[in-house]
Amino acid sequence: MDIKQKIEQANEEAANRLKLGEPILVDIAPAGEVIPGMSGKMIIHAGPPIEWQRMCGAQRGAIIGQVLYEGWANSVDEAVNILNKGEICLEPNHHHYTVGPMAGTISPSAPVWVVENKAFGNRAYCRQVEGNQQFGDYSQEALKGLTLWRDIWAPTLRKALQTIGGLELKQIITKALQMGDELHNRHTAASSLFANAMAVAMAQTDLPKDKLLWTLKYVTNHELIFLGIAMACGKAIADPVMGVDYSTVVTAMCRNGVEFGIRVSSLGDEWFTAPSPKVDGLYVPGYSDQDAGLDMGDSAITETVGWGGFTIGGAPGILSLVGGTPEQALAYSREMSKITVTNHPTYRLPALGFAGTPLGIDIRKVVQTGITPIIDTAIAHKDPGYPKIGAGMVRAPLECFKKALIAFGRRYDVRK
Amino acid sequence: MDIKQKIEQANEEAANRLKLGEPILVDIAPAGEVIPGMSGKMIIHAGPPIEWQRMCGAQRGAIIGQVLYEGWANSVDEAVNILNKGEICLEPNHHHYTVGPMAGTISPSAPVWVVENKAFGNRAYCRQVEGNQQFGDYSQEALKGLTLWRDIWAPTLRKALQTIGGLELKQIITKALQMGDELHNRHTAASSLFANAMAVAMAQTDLPKDKLLWTLKYVTNHELIFLGIAMACGKAIADPVMGVDYSTVVTAMCRNGVEFGIRVSSLGDEWFTAPSPKVDGLYVPGYSDQDAGLDMGDSAITETVGWGGFTIGGAPGILSLVGGTPEQALAYSREMSKITVTNHPTYRLPALGFAGTPLGIDIRKVVQTGITPIIDTAIAHKDPGYPKIGAGMVRAPLECFKKALIAFGRRYDVRK
Repeated sequence: MDIKQKIEQANEEAANRLKLGEPILVDIAPAGEVIPGMSGKMIIHAGPPIEWQRMCGAQRGAIIGQVLYEGWANSVDEAVNILNKGEICLEPNHHHYTVGPMAGTISPSAPVWVVENKAFGNRAYCRQVEGNQQFGDYSQEALKGLTLWRDIWAPTLRKALQTIGGLELKQIITKALQMGDELHNRHTAASSLFANAMAVAMAQTDLPKDKLLWTLKYVTNHELIFLGIAMACGKAIADPVMGVDYSTVVTAMCRNGVEFGIRVSSLGDEWFTAPSPKVDGLYVPGYSDQDAGLDMGDSAITETVGWGGFTIGGAPGILSLVGGTPEQALAYSREMSKITVTNHPTYRLPALGFAGTPLGIDIRKVVQTGITPIIDTAIAHKDPGYPKIGAGMVRAPLECFKKALIAFGRRYDVRK
Repeated sequence: MDIKQKIEQANEEAANRLKLGEPILVDIAPAGEVIPGMSGKMIIHAGPPIEWQRMCGAQRGAIIGQVLYEGWANSVDEAVNILNKGEICLEPNHHHYTVGPMAGTISPSAPVWVVENKAFGNRAYCRQVEGNQQFGDYSQEALKGLTLWRDIWAPTLRKALQTIGGLELKQIITKALQMGDELHNRHTAASSLFANAMAVAMAQTDLPKDKLLWTLKYVTNHELIFLGIAMACGKAIADPVMGVDYSTVVTAMCRNGVEFGIRVSSLGDEWFTAPSPKVDGLYVPGYSDQDAGLDMGDSAITETVGWGGFTIGGAPGILSLVGGTPEQALAYSREMSKITVTNHPTYRLPALGFAGTPLGIDIRKVVQTGITPIIDTAIAHKDPGYPKIGAGMVRAPLECFKKALIAFGRRYDVRK
């Protein structure tokens, strides 16, 4: 068997593992209780590794917020001071089987979604999604969303989830993709279906009526609540693909607002990075691209498993948020099939004649065609202290894929 | 002002009334309590007027079921006997501000959705949607769906609805149209959003936990529950358009499985009918077009207000049910704009670049272009006693529109 055949076979195996993913929401628990390696004064964050000093404004803001939320400091100055001194351990989410939206910060007391991939037995984690602190806003108002999540909403949902013994997510994802979600920035359908399921679960608990009602209102009115779950699904589905010998399939794409990084199956946990690109988007009134930070967040794990920009042709409703025409959106989804190994057998897009979602990004195809993965994403401010300021489309930098392909060539001595 | 100007002005007024429709779900109550003119041993049914002897198989089956459900007879033979003797008063739903899916049968004890059009103060009614009795199945199993609705589900929902003082539907409809529903045969999104709203409402009642949980499970798993509500909305929105002098806008389209009938604004409550057409569709395994009855149901009230076939371009998910390609679906929606007065300012389709739904069918444009309204619909058996056997696409017969235009010409002496 020549190397090309070995790669094809390995990529088939990798794509097959992606197809087999069977995500179950098994818990909603404090990060410190469940995330491996999470201990002490630690905050984990989105993107490839980066030190406090090099972090972008929004991620610094979110880290400050997370320190205040944990009570490790009583003021912004004090928080910055202990961060400057290196008293808080900062590590990437991806080094802990975890992902997080935008700045992606997670600290020990923050409850996270716990998703198990039943087909492989591995677990993955993601933080809650909200529109303020994860974008770098550390105001009291922004932190209130985190404390309510910790004290009211997450424990109530956890109890309900335990009552029904976990929730299978494949059906919700399948349906949501046929209801105009692309599962990165548009989760209107998935969130509604999830709320339906949790309402039934909550009604079976003996929780006090006021907590139940408050949580029910939170869940039924949070159109992005499923994003955190979808990201944990993406991570749980992608992780078993790591380490397939000879495979050129991407297992992670993430950004910290400074660098964009990818991982490739046969190349294990090595990061291949390039500068974070600028997002081409639409802005919340009062903001413009002059205010925008660069591409940020672990949320591109959704594109890694074939959602988000890859399925945007089936989600034209999102175009009011990110710009573009339905025809462009369909073209994006068709284009992504040119850089993937296969299509998903279950996740299908009615707008594309029920074609399966493009699955398994092959770094060879990216470099050969010059077509880079398309991602639809939110936009944070370049400075700390702001909520969400916009959303748009961005391409993964070709440089990451070139670097990875060179490393692959060295590793397997491709010239032989 | 010449007659053409008078017609244009009248149609603008008619379309404006359609735009202004503000549907609120105000009650779920036994038909005999709320539907005007409903009394004694009466069953109201879908479509233009028709006698028992001329009814199609499915509608006869549903009427038999409704008689058994009310306990007016103890066997099918006995039911047929009293129907043959004319002991049950049969009238069209549309003569009672009411609509019903498929056979559309409604009897006094059956709870109906009550929708008020806040902009005009009128109310409209529609029966529950299920997949058996309304298709002509009068088995014990089929009737069980009606008794559970009457005894458990409807009273629980009614209590919840009263607790929140009614439910505004415009927002649900707007969102659902951006989530791949077309609001005739696909209500996956609207039903989910409705279930969320009712879950919050139910959590505020003091209803016994078992009834609450049972009803919550029913609502969250019934993907067509919103169809009955959407139909009542359609009727509530269309009724204020009746009687606009000089207007050629259609105010109702309905079918009884024998005849297809339409009403036109300036021509009041007169029906213009033609033989019911055959539906071009896909069948439940075990059935074929040899088994199919002809087009039936008041559900085309959804197309009358611009949903269903008119918005199918935004609902490609339904194509697995009715057949066809996404391109054909988009073409249908674009085509319908050629026979309508305007587009809806709020109900918009992302797949068509957020164009408003085609609104206000103009009989002149239908006759001039030969383009007839496209309807996506379910298929019942030609004989009594069967559940749903399929779904597909059908065109309203041109003859109805020609007859109406001739009547309009006579009425207004157009040649002058």
